[in-house]
Amino acid sequence: MVDRQVCMKLLVVGSIAFDTVKTPFGKVKEVIGGSAVYASIAASYFVRPTIIGVVGQDFKKRYFEMLENHNIDTSYIKILKGKTFRWEGFYDYDLNTAHTVNTQLNVFSNFNPSLDENLKKETKFVFLGNIDPEIQYKVYKQIMSPLLIACDTMNWWIENKPRQLKKVIKNVDILFINESELRQFTNEYNIVKAAKMVKSLGVKIVIVKRGEYGAICFYKNRIFVVPGYPLEKVYDPTGAGDSFAGGVMGFLASKLKDTTITESLLRQAIIFGTVTASFCVEDFGVNRIYNISFNQICKRYREIKQLTHFEELK
Amino acid sequence: MVDRQVCMKLLVVGSIAFDTVKTPFGKVKEVIGGSAVYASIAASYFVRPTIIGVVGQDFKKRYFEMLENHNIDTSYIKILKGKTFRWEGFYDYDLNTAHTVNTQLNVFSNFNPSLDENLKKETKFVFLGNIDPEIQYKVYKQIMSPLLIACDTMNWWIENKPRQLKKVIKNVDILFINESELRQFTNEYNIVKAAKMVKSLGVKIVIVKRGEYGAICFYKNRIFVVPGYPLEKVYDPTGAGDSFAGGVMGFLASKLKDTTITESLLRQAIIFGTVTASFCVEDFGVNRIYNISFNQICKRYREIKQLTHFEELK
Repeated sequence: MVDRQVCMKLLVVGSIAFDTVKTPFGKVKEVIGGSAVYASIAASYFVRPTIIGVVGQDFKKRYFEMLENHNIDTSYIKILKGKTFRWEGFYDYDLNTAHTVNTQLNVFSNFNPSLDENLKKETKFVFLGNIDPEIQYKVYKQIMSPLLIACDTMNWWIENKPRQLKKVIKNVDILFINESELRQFTNEYNIVKAAKMVKSLGVKIVIVKRGEYGAICFYKNRIFVVPGYPLEKVYDPTGAGDSFAGGVMGFLASKLKDTTITESLLRQAIIFGTVTASFCVEDFGVNRIYNISFNQICKRYREIKQLTHFEELK
Repeated sequence: MVDRQVCMKLLVVGSIAFDTVKTPFGKVKEVIGGSAVYASIAASYFVRPTIIGVVGQDFKKRYFEMLENHNIDTSYIKILKGKTFRWEGFYDYDLNTAHTVNTQLNVFSNFNPSLDENLKKETKFVFLGNIDPEIQYKVYKQIMSPLLIACDTMNWWIENKPRQLKKVIKNVDILFINESELRQFTNEYNIVKAAKMVKSLGVKIVIVKRGEYGAICFYKNRIFVVPGYPLEKVYDPTGAGDSFAGGVMGFLASKLKDTTITESLLRQAIIFGTVTASFCVEDFGVNRIYNISFNQICKRYREIKQLTHFEELK
């Protein structure tokens, strides 16, 4: 189904972190995480993504190997003097909301990626994970002939750099955004209206993430709605949004040959994103999303087809 | 598509009320409402439902006419001395939660329906709206040869009459329940687990209502998930759950010829319920749900098919 050989380059730009997470179902300490890690693991089931990120000297060789073993190009990850970015947080039973306890930016505060000539020329697909919109814009500007660029964001940037964020959204093809963040960004409660407002800024496709309720996508004048995959075990939602975006972008990077994106392909990509996100939350950290097979992904895709199917009206 | 002539009798048991409602988009005072009214209006697009309910002397002739004009049998509505049930509430921007300001049961506190021989024999379908589970059970017991009985409930009964509610749930075929009420009833946060727990009590089908996020249905070992219909204008969610159940039950009553319910039919019914609920919330009170055509219902059914469609995996 997917031929990794002929795929064009997908860059995944974002954080690489050590996460300490507590949920009602357990806890983990300083496990590998970050938006670039989750997104690239999810994307790597479809293409060989290249991570653009920064780590400290405490980011051991085995972590590089772990990513490389998963078909991820780590050769552009920069190692800086100091410690890797750390995030600590917890979730209550309402797993839709992360509560941050502690953030240590460490080397991440000096993250300022400049691409080499090869990457500038060869990159066709970019996922700009949730980082400072000024850095997102800087990366965007370096790509010489992109086919599809997507960005994610979060409440912090909406509050503190709304102007810079708007500039990014004006220029990218896809915006991934949480429902509550979309409301915050537009000051409009109704999601359909809010998505239209964002689209009027220039972005082609708005994909609203709704946690366990799935996603809703706005493209041209059409809407696509998909529910979340119903799970009996949700252990840790950390990285779900990035795994979703990674699945979407990985699939699209494996399929798109030019800038023409069909609705049918976009919808399939969103289902694959729903699938990769659903695996992500089934265990702490990357434990589950790292250890599945492409067959399992396809099986769950077919299950979602079955879960949502109903007869046409005659 | 639907032949109302040959349909078997559907009873809709529940409240008939005058509602005073405020939302961020406006307010209405003492408009006709109540679970039996919303559910029977929604069902009346598919069959001629019979309301079992009680009103006071202030329930004017024109209200009876209004319901009769919508293909609803009002001949079993009892008029008692006193005033009709009144509910006053408001909603914030989060239209998923109703805040009650005032409830006056009035004649509703004496609601104790006993069916005549004709109804006992002829009734094949029953929707037991959200009322005291003891009364739900009493009505259930009177039906001599039912094909399908459904009930709804709410937090008040879960808190105050859990034992009686369990007895109802053990005996009916379909339980309609809100996501938050399902959690409260089972003391289990995960919806999939919670639904399984309820099914183990004996009810065949559990349909969990998720407000703007749609519904999820548990039948045998299968799950059906449908997102809500995305609306730009949601004015008043009052009655949405009852309009949903009314659409489901109305469609099933128009189609089922025996107790064998197919998954395909159930899924279609849930889409019709999603459609009738979506019309309900587009205006205050029954204004919108009362004034649509069957063609509009079918059009929206087809739109939901389009909104949720994606390709099979080859």
